[in-house]
Amino acid sequence: MSYTAPVKDMLFAIEHLANIEQIAQIPGFEDAGLDTAAAVLEECAKFNEGVLAPLNWEGDKNPSSWKDGVVTTTPGFKEAFRQYAEGGWQGLQHPADFGGQGLPKTIGAACIEMTNSANMSFALCPLLTDGAIEALLTAGSDELKATYLEKLVTGQWTGTMNLTEPQAGSDLALVRTRAEPQPDGTYKIFGTKIFITYGEHDMAENIIHLVLARVQGAPEGVKGISLFVVPKFMVNKDGSLGARNDAHCVSIEHKLGIKASPTAVLQFGDHGGAVGYLVGEENRGLEYMFIMMNAARYAVGMQGIAISERAYQKAVQYAKDRVQSRPVDGSIAASAPIIHHPDVKRMLMTMRATVEGCRAMATVAAAAFDAAHHHPDADTRKQNQAFYEFMVPLVKGYSTETSLEVTSLGVQVHGGMGFIEETGAAQYYRDAKILTIYEGTTAIQANDLVGRKTARDGGQVAKGIAAQIEKTEADLLASGTPAALAVAKRLTAARKALLDVIDFVAGGTKAQPNAVFAGSVPYLMLAGNVVAGWQLARSLLVAQDLLQKGQDEAFMRAKITTAQFYADHILVKAPGLRDSIVEGAASVTELALEAF
Amino acid sequence: MSYTAPVKDMLFAIEHLANIEQIAQIPGFEDAGLDTAAAVLEECAKFNEGVLAPLNWEGDKNPSSWKDGVVTTTPGFKEAFRQYAEGGWQGLQHPADFGGQGLPKTIGAACIEMTNSANMSFALCPLLTDGAIEALLTAGSDELKATYLEKLVTGQWTGTMNLTEPQAGSDLALVRTRAEPQPDGTYKIFGTKIFITYGEHDMAENIIHLVLARVQGAPEGVKGISLFVVPKFMVNKDGSLGARNDAHCVSIEHKLGIKASPTAVLQFGDHGGAVGYLVGEENRGLEYMFIMMNAARYAVGMQGIAISERAYQKAVQYAKDRVQSRPVDGSIAASAPIIHHPDVKRMLMTMRATVEGCRAMATVAAAAFDAAHHHPDADTRKQNQAFYEFMVPLVKGYSTETSLEVTSLGVQVHGGMGFIEETGAAQYYRDAKILTIYEGTTAIQANDLVGRKTARDGGQVAKGIAAQIEKTEADLLASGTPAALAVAKRLTAARKALLDVIDFVAGGTKAQPNAVFAGSVPYLMLAGNVVAGWQLARSLLVAQDLLQKGQDEAFMRAKITTAQFYADHILVKAPGLRDSIVEGAASVTELALEAF
Repeated sequence: MSYTAPVKDMLFAIEHLANIEQIAQIPGFEDAGLDTAAAVLEECAKFNEGVLAPLNWEGDKNPSSWKDGVVTTTPGFKEAFRQYAEGGWQGLQHPADFGGQGLPKTIGAACIEMTNSANMSFALCPLLTDGAIEALLTAGSDELKATYLEKLVTGQWTGTMNLTEPQAGSDLALVRTRAEPQPDGTYKIFGTKIFITYGEHDMAENIIHLVLARVQGAPEGVKGISLFVVPKFMVNKDGSLGARNDAHCVSIEHKLGIKASPTAVLQFGDHGGAVGYLVGEENRGLEYMFIMMNAARYAVGMQGIAISERAYQKAVQYAKDRVQSRPVDGSIAASAPIIHHPDVKRMLMTMRATVEGCRAMATVAAAAFDAAHHHPDADTRKQNQAFYEFMVPLVKGYSTETSLEVTSLGVQVHGGMGFIEETGAAQYYRDAKILTIYEGTTAIQANDLVGRKTARDGGQVAKGIAAQIEKTEADLLASGTPAALAVAKRLTAARKALLDVIDFVAGGTKAQPNAVFAGSVPYLMLAGNVVAGWQLARSLLVAQDLLQKGQDEAFMRAKITTAQFYADHILVKAPGLRDSIVEGAASVTELALEAF
Repeated sequence: MSYTAPVKDMLFAIEHLANIEQIAQIPGFEDAGLDTAAAVLEECAKFNEGVLAPLNWEGDKNPSSWKDGVVTTTPGFKEAFRQYAEGGWQGLQHPADFGGQGLPKTIGAACIEMTNSANMSFALCPLLTDGAIEALLTAGSDELKATYLEKLVTGQWTGTMNLTEPQAGSDLALVRTRAEPQPDGTYKIFGTKIFITYGEHDMAENIIHLVLARVQGAPEGVKGISLFVVPKFMVNKDGSLGARNDAHCVSIEHKLGIKASPTAVLQFGDHGGAVGYLVGEENRGLEYMFIMMNAARYAVGMQGIAISERAYQKAVQYAKDRVQSRPVDGSIAASAPIIHHPDVKRMLMTMRATVEGCRAMATVAAAAFDAAHHHPDADTRKQNQAFYEFMVPLVKGYSTETSLEVTSLGVQVHGGMGFIEETGAAQYYRDAKILTIYEGTTAIQANDLVGRKTARDGGQVAKGIAAQIEKTEADLLASGTPAALAVAKRLTAARKALLDVIDFVAGGTKAQPNAVFAGSVPYLMLAGNVVAGWQLARSLLVAQDLLQKGQDEAFMRAKITTAQFYADHILVKAPGLRDSIVEGAASVTELALEAF
């Protein structure tokens, strides 16, 4: 088996860190307790291990290809997508009204991880469709909903997000695609969009593009951007497909990774104008797009965890098989599997601890999302919403930045074989590199963390999280085991470092913006590191407890060791990051531009 | 221009850190002063910028290809190699007796950096040839020298190193290739070697393979390995080429990077036995091979610096061109080139400081090599040899590990464009990944650092370096400028961290080998970090001094800022690494194998 879903670790986080049984008390989620979670994850594991994982390397070898406007995906992808749709996986988290299953994100996120571990290139298609569904649910008219939602939710059609243009990447104020109002209430869309994931493909009957464009006469900048639905094929009143719309794929990119996922250049309106339908109100497009973006950002964070998990599993397998050199402690008097060598263990533990830490963080964030959207109590909703919003840039930024290191270590464990493409470790390394870039680069996430999530409320939410961490430290001290004390020491130092930085950021964005933003990404990395380490510290306490109850000894012992490793080798970086941010800003921005 | 050799920074290091004028006082190097260095570097820059750099992307697009045992290199490579040879670049550091120029490594290293920045795939051919030359110079008989050396030194023929076999990678004890003695004093070689860089190609008339093999009846393990010369074409007495030898390339690898460099599987003796000539004595092959390896390891370190420099230059260019978003400080009231954004500056500064720090370290190490090999005073030679040997794993390990981060940042600065292969940033990211693997993985370098370079002498050399660093701290304090004081603070903390680790390593390799080797790579990264930071601290002092003398203000100010950035953002990691190593060993090795 090339991929085995880490169901046990996922359920540990879902049960003990995210408290799924509490979520199951929220009206609408009555059936979404631990048993459901276990059943869904098992089924999901089966599908991803059996169907999607074996297609992953195939997708790298035989990427999507373009000819005369038509994109042909990797052999096997179309059939796999049919199975994905039929299994109901696209609709897992979407409302039953439109054919979905309405499960909480706490469960859905684990499934998204699996699909991305199995086949990240494939998973991008449903990931973008999720975004389109989200936008239509929030801002679409009843007519748009009726026409498009069920087909998207059931995986009959797929969706895309069209933001980027050659001159407008992170800076959407520069979007130039234009929309001309027509007498019948529709719009004609003209312009070029680039980097459109699954902007064209052969896996579904229709593709529903969600497109940012400016209505003629709209204000300059981001306040003049509207959102439109532009279907590839027009949809008749009875739901059948009509004429081809004037939206065409003129090329796809030749990329470092995720090669099976077609990245399209789309041309709108070269033959008279593409028919578009306004979503919500004019000039509020960016707001709606952010709904898609926020869902997508969380999902990209899951991709980071997913690719790291896959890289970890492959590295472990190789390290257990490959025989080379004697162990330094003389425990084996012959060449041994390289997993016996301390540095190989260090690499594997770094990968493992990072994955488990990020997964724990993301699972807890998902639970907050569920409570924020569905809890009957308004205060609880508000509190959870604030927590979730703080988590999104961390889940996205930290889980993806660390995936670069994890997949790099994955290659490294393989030695020379890692550099040979057929081994497969290099694919994860190449695939991962997009994750820190798309749906907002790490710097964009960090700007969000600094501006909207920290400075705006004077650091209140951030400090509230630090206070929760302090409680965990107290629990660790109360536990008093050597492992708990070791973790407490690092966690306390890390939390204090984080608090210093929160003050620096919250107090300085106006007075010294260059200094604060010079430390924005280090702040994101620090905060992600601390939150992931905190969740592993919680895991350690749970594991100690369950161990005493005689539950699954091997798993619990591993959890404790992994938490301690994280604390001693990853969380330990926190004070250094604090110093860089708080004391090191000057040297970041000091160099004259001409000197570069 | 896609690459501009950083001649000024190289000469700064050569003049002020490596003290070239002192090297020029060593007999044999009388003509190798600063003027010579400047002249050679200028000439070298011209060749690399003009001839090799433009072929780099071409090599990635049209890699070497294999057909029926014949390898065809990228169009343009053969002609470029002819020019390389005619320019005398292969012989730069080799003895005049064999057609070389006999220049010090202090100058030669800069040239190697340039060639690797310009075209790493191309540069591997001369890099391996250098190793072959080194081995023959040290251990070859007069006859072997007479037959092969001049042709190699002048670039008429090229050389290879044949160590790895499918079952024998880092663990050369497992080498199985066998050598059967023949009545005429030659040997017949039988076996398979893999990962042979430029093991077959069309750029030179002949290829001289240096092959590790076991003579029948030799002892088990590494003490039974001998080194052989196995030419592709037999060489007649008059130096002309004779029959094809029984050494054939059966395939080349499909790799993540350095695609233009053919990585061959070589089959020796499938048609009766390849003719081999013993180098030196039987069973001393590993010792000789280490001569090649040590030269090659240093050179691979230069490759790390080289690819980082190239990635940095490309990122700077993009950051100055790409317009996106307004600066956070409001200094420009419109979208601006992204170099104005603090996080982009942080990424560029990280790249720059890393490159300059590693270059400074490597240049100083090269000077020690020159003194170790050529200084008339035995004590000076010995002292410099010890310093150089300590530096080799740092130059190799630290400069290549950091090149992974630098080339990753290079992609990141480009945003989505970085993920598109045609942009070129991704090539550096892919190319760099081999550097932490070949010529001994980082873990192998770290073992060397721990075992031979630290534990063996009880940490004496390491502590001697720390004592030198302490002197630089005193100079910084005496200088008293804000930049000097800021750097002194970090350098002192880092040195103390290093000293703790030296004690931990020197004292523990026998009593607690697992604990010490669990921290071997972190120790290497710590030591490399501290030495690079130290050399930048020295650079800062020099720059302050020259600034006062009115010399090249812009350059000197940039040097000072870069040194401070390094201290505040990179050197600052040292105490955390110390804690991981000294206090965190248990959690590295604790997890049961079954739990992975």
